[in-house]
Amino acid sequence: MGPDPVHLNFASDNVMGASAPVLEALVRASVGAMPAYGADDLTVEVERSFCDLFEREVAVFLVGTGTAANALALATLVSPWGLCLCHEEAHVIDEECGAPEFFTHGAKLHGLKGVGCKIDPATLRATLDGFSAHEKQMPAQAVSISQATESGLVYRPDEIAAIAEVCRERALRLHMDGARFANALVAQDVSPAAMTWRAGVDILSFGATKNGCLAAEAIVVFDPSLADTLTYRRKRSGQTFSKGRFLAAQFAGYLGQDHWLQNARHANAMARCLADGLAAVPGVRLAWEVQANEVFLIIPDDLDRRLKAGGAAYHPWSPRALSADEGVAPGEKLIRLVASFATKREAVDDLLTVASGP
Amino acid sequence: MGPDPVHLNFASDNVMGASAPVLEALVRASVGAMPAYGADDLTVEVERSFCDLFEREVAVFLVGTGTAANALALATLVSPWGLCLCHEEAHVIDEECGAPEFFTHGAKLHGLKGVGCKIDPATLRATLDGFSAHEKQMPAQAVSISQATESGLVYRPDEIAAIAEVCRERALRLHMDGARFANALVAQDVSPAAMTWRAGVDILSFGATKNGCLAAEAIVVFDPSLADTLTYRRKRSGQTFSKGRFLAAQFAGYLGQDHWLQNARHANAMARCLADGLAAVPGVRLAWEVQANEVFLIIPDDLDRRLKAGGAAYHPWSPRALSADEGVAPGEKLIRLVASFATKREAVDDLLTVASGP
Amino acid sequence: MGPDPVHLNFASDNVMGASAPVLEALVRASVGAMPAYGADDLTVEVERSFCDLFEREVAVFLVGTGTAANALALATLVSPWGLCLCHEEAHVIDEECGAPEFFTHGAKLHGLKGVGCKIDPATLRATLDGFSAHEKQMPAQAVSISQATESGLVYRPDEIAAIAEVCRERALRLHMDGARFANALVAQDVSPAAMTWRAGVDILSFGATKNGCLAAEAIVVFDPSLADTLTYRRKRSGQTFSKGRFLAAQFAGYLGQDHWLQNARHANAMARCLADGLAAVPGVRLAWEVQANEVFLIIPDDLDRRLKAGGAAYHPWSPRALSADEGVAPGEKLIRLVASFATKREAVDDLLTVASGP
Amino acid sequence: MGPDPVHLNFASDNVMGASAPVLEALVRASVGAMPAYGADDLTVEVERSFCDLFEREVAVFLVGTGTAANALALATLVSPWGLCLCHEEAHVIDEECGAPEFFTHGAKLHGLKGVGCKIDPATLRATLDGFSAHEKQMPAQAVSISQATESGLVYRPDEIAAIAEVCRERALRLHMDGARFANALVAQDVSPAAMTWRAGVDILSFGATKNGCLAAEAIVVFDPSLADTLTYRRKRSGQTFSKGRFLAAQFAGYLGQDHWLQNARHANAMARCLADGLAAVPGVRLAWEVQANEVFLIIPDDLDRRLKAGGAAYHPWSPRALSADEGVAPGEKLIRLVASFATKREAVDDLLTVASGP
Repeated sequence: MGPDPVHLNFASDNVMGASAPVLEALVRASVGAMPAYGADDLTVEVERSFCDLFEREVAVFLVGTGTAANALALATLVSPWGLCLCHEEAHVIDEECGAPEFFTHGAKLHGLKGVGCKIDPATLRATLDGFSAHEKQMPAQAVSISQATESGLVYRPDEIAAIAEVCRERALRLHMDGARFANALVAQDVSPAAMTWRAGVDILSFGATKNGCLAAEAIVVFDPSLADTLTYRRKRSGQTFSKGRFLAAQFAGYLGQDHWLQNARHANAMARCLADGLAAVPGVRLAWEVQANEVFLIIPDDLDRRLKAGGAAYHPWSPRALSADEGVAPGEKLIRLVASFATKREAVDDLLTVASGP
Repeated sequence: MGPDPVHLNFASDNVMGASAPVLEALVRASVGAMPAYGADDLTVEVERSFCDLFEREVAVFLVGTGTAANALALATLVSPWGLCLCHEEAHVIDEECGAPEFFTHGAKLHGLKGVGCKIDPATLRATLDGFSAHEKQMPAQAVSISQATESGLVYRPDEIAAIAEVCRERALRLHMDGARFANALVAQDVSPAAMTWRAGVDILSFGATKNGCLAAEAIVVFDPSLADTLTYRRKRSGQTFSKGRFLAAQFAGYLGQDHWLQNARHANAMARCLADGLAAVPGVRLAWEVQANEVFLIIPDDLDRRLKAGGAAYHPWSPRALSADEGVAPGEKLIRLVASFATKREAVDDLLTVASGP
Repeated sequence: MGPDPVHLNFASDNVMGASAPVLEALVRASVGAMPAYGADDLTVEVERSFCDLFEREVAVFLVGTGTAANALALATLVSPWGLCLCHEEAHVIDEECGAPEFFTHGAKLHGLKGVGCKIDPATLRATLDGFSAHEKQMPAQAVSISQATESGLVYRPDEIAAIAEVCRERALRLHMDGARFANALVAQDVSPAAMTWRAGVDILSFGATKNGCLAAEAIVVFDPSLADTLTYRRKRSGQTFSKGRFLAAQFAGYLGQDHWLQNARHANAMARCLADGLAAVPGVRLAWEVQANEVFLIIPDDLDRRLKAGGAAYHPWSPRALSADEGVAPGEKLIRLVASFATKREAVDDLLTVASGP
Repeated sequence: MGPDPVHLNFASDNVMGASAPVLEALVRASVGAMPAYGADDLTVEVERSFCDLFEREVAVFLVGTGTAANALALATLVSPWGLCLCHEEAHVIDEECGAPEFFTHGAKLHGLKGVGCKIDPATLRATLDGFSAHEKQMPAQAVSISQATESGLVYRPDEIAAIAEVCRERALRLHMDGARFANALVAQDVSPAAMTWRAGVDILSFGATKNGCLAAEAIVVFDPSLADTLTYRRKRSGQTFSKGRFLAAQFAGYLGQDHWLQNARHANAMARCLADGLAAVPGVRLAWEVQANEVFLIIPDDLDRRLKAGGAAYHPWSPRALSADEGVAPGEKLIRLVASFATKREAVDDLLTVASGP
């Protein structure tokens, strides 16, 4: 651990704390006695608010981490001997230390190639066609997409629907990892319903931590038949919080008065500023279009050195999801910068000043 | 869900919110950027503070729930084909929907009888003697004790050491479920070290949620060789929080300035008031001695009705751990009342008023 | 390992080899090329023969061991967080090193008391009534009974139906561990159908190894909806044999011309001889009635010594399932002797000679 | 299921039955009483014979299927959150319906590219270099190689040693899937020791089923510390056969008087005849060199049709492991033919006659 660059920290959206309305709701919820384990009124109220948000009956399971939300959701879709297809750089396959394998009791994630970490329906179909029907082959049972993707791109509802159509053809279920659901939503002029169940999504990991909560995610189940087991799965995985009110309170603060949408709009706007400013620096180009709150850039090594010397924090990134006509040349680096609800305009400006050089 | 009896709610210590210093620490910790996933300075500092608390090097893993803490701890001690012995009414065997079985990948909890939910070394030895050495028998690998027990009793260090001696004889590991560690500690004039590793405990679930936190537990590992796998086990179980600062902050508020001990002393004192007041009501007797913050009473049915009519909330309880010369007669009920850091003296008095009748 | 007492070996029915018709069928099946993994004609034919045997459509899965048959069968009935109730001395809970926990991914076996290792419907009901409906409690999902029981007793069809009725009331599934199915069947004048699905059994472990095969068991599924997952479960557990013909061939030899029933009748008759002869020895009494091929006796220590000195092999046994008015006094031992298809009348006579003393 | 082409069946080596010495040993072993569960003298003797065979102390665990042998072996090397690297077409990753994932409780197999299904040390090193050291990344813990490979190639001892050196550098364990161990052995003039532990192999799945047994595989453990858990793992996975003598007897017949080596030499010779004869047919070329008992050919579509019309059975194959300068053109097919101990010279001749056309 070197010195922690607080001001210019674009390493991830989870390097920031929680937003004020969320903290206030938390403090408010602490008063008095309430039933434990999510049987309190606040939890019930928050669960209902998801029905309003998605314009239909949904089953909602609040949990503490995105890893748990994803792994629990996948466990409802895939049997221990089943396959779930996802992009080869999906968070679930690459960043969760085998949580899906643990929660599903051994299911396998099968990675697909795709530009911008997007799954292409044609690739999906071709992959499924290549599988044997023999029992030696773990049968494909689900597809998981990330919204926004690990390259910061956003699936449009029609793109989701196209994937969902392949799923229906092959009797697969569709999961959406919505760790950056809010950012993807405000990037498009669509409703939560349009971006999920109306397009064919069966179950959603609704992320809230990155966008302003402390530790709060919701599993939103659109097909009620999938909800049956989650009460038990959540409990036995240690994700049923005894003082359930504190998960609910975060959502109350987060969803109330469109606070979550404002947070996401701010993050996306800051990412746009970062992208515009940095793309204007000589030798810099965007790896993928900036559609939500993440900026992926191919930069010259000397800019990389200058940014780091200036105290900027960000991560190098994998070039695997670049398009065929793009690449990282010798003397270049592919990097990711993430803006969040708490990213200050001054931090962006300061970074751009560092980038523009002496 | 009937009406929620806020004022006279003695159902559990987890029906209360969080205490003010914990909430304040949480709000304070929210400012600025910090590395994610527990690499922040606050987490490192809190982890160090456990070394001070226990007067030795320990490995510490912060998690969100007691179920996760227990199940992760047991998974480090017991292989998937191993047995862990505990009291037949232990929380781990009876209240966690199979979380230990999930985290250990199939280990079995073997319940022992014992008055007041305490494990007796002689019973432990006799049970182990009765096991076959053949591979058909899952081999015993660990013992888990609850401090305080599920009957509200406290193991003295010498009692723990006697159990640990059996463990050493048989090459078993010893886990302590310290969901009410603070209450058990202040009930005796001993140090955390004396009540754990000096008496032979290998790994501890250090509870903080019930005694004033929102959702914060620590796995404290006294044998460093047991810590090797927990980094991965915690991550893949969805218990590594991305904004790790918020788990750490709760502990900073909780442990600072002996706040946790004050909370526990208050809870124990309130339990004492409840016990003294109710035991004086005709027909009422204590099921087990009140040593920490739980009160178990055998009461006449009409008192049970009167208390409920007065709005009191508490749970009926199992008579299995009563001593041989005690029992619940027809027309009687065994009930549990729990006091917490947030239990008000007036609530106790009001309950006693209800109990004393019209 | 001391010297192996071949002649007077009554330790178990699995200390014997395979019967001639089974070996002959095996040798016959070895000729020529056949599709692998159970797609051969012989396997298909044997699977069909189970439909005839049980007078209805059944799904059949051949496997190599009884442990695998039981564990795979239970895994179709119980989810990873579910409970299966069985007798506290059932083979599945006591003798399989946690195989059910492994194959079910963590389900729990809950042991019931009962004389002669039989489950009593009233005990079953009372136990279920004592469970909480809260998610902290692993929900009961199945019952497993052993036919014959671990005390050598046989469930009559009406007794099975009474247990099945409780199962229906509580939406539980019913499994029969038929490791000694043949012995139980010929002990009564009933059909395989009457002793299983007509009485309410959902899935059966049809044992053949103990009664004359080398290593062959069949999972017989009466509810087709339960068969869906077994193709995959069997394959991933390494129980789908590549040269599947050799499992099928054993059954062809076993089931053909009522060979299995003859084997069982012989074993039961030899057990009867053992029981009659030994019960006539002064100081000896039956622990439980001899109904199939196992003999449980309470004998004086000096007889135990005499038998062992004479080279007899048998196992001491647990007294837990004795009736309330029976017990093992100081100076006595509870022992089990098992007769098999291969037990010779001379061996029985020789044992009785040893028993009758000098 | 179409008609079963017995005579020209080259679909796999497991379409054949068992060889006569194996069957004879089985029948011989059936006589008399023996201790169950592998405690019999024959099993002990066979286990000792592996020590002679490998010129050192080894721990041996007999099981019924290759899937079980591989999955149990990998489970001793890889923790539930660990990675095992293998070729992307390895049997363990592609053909076992997730058995390794089941037995390891969720470990992941990571597939590497490589010509002829061989792992290249440079590829292995580069892949390991690309992994993150962060806990989000499942840590690499083992490598599994197939001998012979899924393309029918054989690793020389020095090639194995080169892979083992990478393993030592990175603290990985090395597993060999020896489903066709005998064929790979006789293809080279080396000893079993040279091809395994002397080259750095930690644990071996010693296949015997394909080369003449009915259903018998051995897990051979070279590092004694890895054997500790296998007694329990085998039992709880239903692979500890009650009449253990019958697994042992197969090995007695198989290993005695070099029968296994003769079987393998015959199979390899038949593969050589097939390859020589078919490669001479116009338009046919070898996909990979024929080194053991499998023949991979790229053939014109019309030859494929002619062979099938003539009753030949074989499988189409994946071109993924072809070298960069080879490929399957339109109008061509890649096929696999397998010879076994039971393949008759006349069958080979008849196939060649069919291939040479009318």
